[in-house]
Amino acid sequence: MNNILVVNAGSSSLKWQLFQQSDLTLLASGLMERMNTPEASFTFKFQGQKEQVAIANLSYEDGVLRLLKQLEDNGIIHSPADIIAVGHRVVAGATTFEKPTIIDRTNLDTLKQLDKYAPLHNPVQVDCIETLMHILPTNVPQVAVFDSQFYLDMPDETSFYGLPYEYSQDYQIRKYGEHGISHSYILQATADFLKEPVADLKLITLHLGGGSSITASQNGKPVDTSMGFTPLEGVPMGTRAGSLDAAIVPFLMNELDKSADDVITLLNAKSGILGVSGVSADMRDIQSTRATNPRAKLAYDMFITSAVKFIASYHVELGGANVITFTAGIGENDARLRADICAKLAVLGVQINPELNENGSGARQISTPDSAIKVLMIPTNEELAIANHVLTTI
Amino acid sequence: MNNILVVNAGSSSLKWQLFQQSDLTLLASGLMERMNTPEASFTFKFQGQKEQVAIANLSYEDGVLRLLKQLEDNGIIHSPADIIAVGHRVVAGATTFEKPTIIDRTNLDTLKQLDKYAPLHNPVQVDCIETLMHILPTNVPQVAVFDSQFYLDMPDETSFYGLPYEYSQDYQIRKYGEHGISHSYILQATADFLKEPVADLKLITLHLGGGSSITASQNGKPVDTSMGFTPLEGVPMGTRAGSLDAAIVPFLMNELDKSADDVITLLNAKSGILGVSGVSADMRDIQSTRATNPRAKLAYDMFITSAVKFIASYHVELGGANVITFTAGIGENDARLRADICAKLAVLGVQINPELNENGSGARQISTPDSAIKVLMIPTNEELAIANHVLTTI
Repeated sequence: MNNILVVNAGSSSLKWQLFQQSDLTLLASGLMERMNTPEASFTFKFQGQKEQVAIANLSYEDGVLRLLKQLEDNGIIHSPADIIAVGHRVVAGATTFEKPTIIDRTNLDTLKQLDKYAPLHNPVQVDCIETLMHILPTNVPQVAVFDSQFYLDMPDETSFYGLPYEYSQDYQIRKYGEHGISHSYILQATADFLKEPVADLKLITLHLGGGSSITASQNGKPVDTSMGFTPLEGVPMGTRAGSLDAAIVPFLMNELDKSADDVITLLNAKSGILGVSGVSADMRDIQSTRATNPRAKLAYDMFITSAVKFIASYHVELGGANVITFTAGIGENDARLRADICAKLAVLGVQINPELNENGSGARQISTPDSAIKVLMIPTNEELAIANHVLTTI
Repeated sequence: MNNILVVNAGSSSLKWQLFQQSDLTLLASGLMERMNTPEASFTFKFQGQKEQVAIANLSYEDGVLRLLKQLEDNGIIHSPADIIAVGHRVVAGATTFEKPTIIDRTNLDTLKQLDKYAPLHNPVQVDCIETLMHILPTNVPQVAVFDSQFYLDMPDETSFYGLPYEYSQDYQIRKYGEHGISHSYILQATADFLKEPVADLKLITLHLGGGSSITASQNGKPVDTSMGFTPLEGVPMGTRAGSLDAAIVPFLMNELDKSADDVITLLNAKSGILGVSGVSADMRDIQSTRATNPRAKLAYDMFITSAVKFIASYHVELGGANVITFTAGIGENDARLRADICAKLAVLGVQINPELNENGSGARQISTPDSAIKVLMIPTNEELAIANHVLTTI
């Protein structure tokens, strides 16, 4: 049986799915969390069954080896040779990798040089590529699908920073955005759902999860996005600060006696919803405590306000959005948060139907027929999107 | 004769005005530019006359001494004793100074400790206060009027950053905004112009000049503003980068082998319109070259796009703005730029009358009667605003 394995490694987790090549039927999937910590866990899902085991200090390499063994042990594959291609999510391709690319010995070093564009993500993602290069036969293509690719189409006036021009050029500093694979997938899924051509959409997609990004697309291409050079910029996220005055970096270095890198790590790992609320990085915990905890309320209000501001600015940039689509963990599951964002968009004529918003499951329209902008909820599927990219690349 | 002197020192310039105390009639004014450089100049305006002299390496202290001497030499004052109070613009009061404050020996050190909140501005402004303390009798009040004060009223969800809460509290890190004296003045001036109560305005003020900031106000108080912890954040400015991903700071430190402070100085002094265009920090030069120079066009497009995004987001935050007022160097004088911003706001129902926009002088409405949001141009007068604060403080 010919299968495609998709590996979606994050800064502390690894999601994977195994697809049948012929029709991209999902065969098995899994999730590893809190990698390289004493609390690491390994979850394997197959035929409606879910098995979770704790494996202290599980590394990315051991995790990949274990998932292959488990696929064999469960008879899902007979041998690793059943995997005819692997798709890897890679956050940063900078301007070097403009499309999904087969990574081999000839370009692996070039890819490694991009670690600095996503220091929390690219190194572990490249690790996974190298690990699978060693385990699988050399003729099995390892396809890197880059989150940054989608945004290389953005106009200069939204992708450039106000830096000296030479620096933007020489060091490839621009808005690369994030979740490009998801936003691109949702762009097409929105068109399919509405049975309209992609080119007719003036769409705002909200990928709201542990990391959150908001993207405006027109004529099938992104015109702006909330994340920036790295995933730090944008709305406040689970543990990331979101947009902030860059002058805060040296100020905190001085006050805390820390290096610039340490301050950026702090801004990525201990800030945002977690840092403001002091409660949790998980929006479910914020929702359940904000009525009585003022800092949880503040974190929630900051998130809503920030998201609404991005939507408003993108509405005008698009010359009037016609669709808003929510997706990802929070966007798919937190009806209250969707309602609170949409309530603030009433001035733009947005109206949601509480019944459609709160009930039902799966992709659906949640706005009223009168709403000036249609509002949808569509589940994302980055792994399926990556598998599709693999099929068109190998 | 009892007079009030207002000193508005910037990072490289000093503007001043002398007012008659009784009715704030303007008696004389002046401007010193490129302070502490070989190209420094001293301009003195009095009774419609303007005299400019070059004084290489003019310091703030010498400049203040010279302006007092020139006031005496021209018989505008008989002696420094005619000055009964001095108003000083001070950028950063942090959360320590919540209103205009007489600075004397008891609180001067407290003020000096705030230098780190505006390292390019506060030190020279404190210098001017100390200089005038020495020259003028000790019973002449030196009133510090803080740009940051206006924004201390902002709601937490727009003034907090996504930092760990303790840091925001312990180190007074929040959005302080900028040009608060100007935005506050324009808020009242807009109400006066429209003969409406300030409390009825849902107003967006655009202070566009060498530094630019955009502020939303409701019920007579600011609800959001584009500048941040320092004047670096917001729209791209003459030489300031505006908003950017904070992770760019360590990235540039590494690529350029510079300290964090050096990178922030670069982002403040060699970036923005100047850095992107490579032409000039002056919008007039950008307007005159952008038809043929692609980088000047890019800088212009970035400025317009950024300003429009702030306006759009504030429109929604205000639940529908009812007035937009342009002010300051660019906002008052660049009709083409006003038109280009307003054209992108057509989706919000904004319509300007080209005749009213391009012609006429002084405060005026430039929108059509049908425009969903009124658009005004009102000249700012920070020095008059400071003089008014002095009168209510002494």
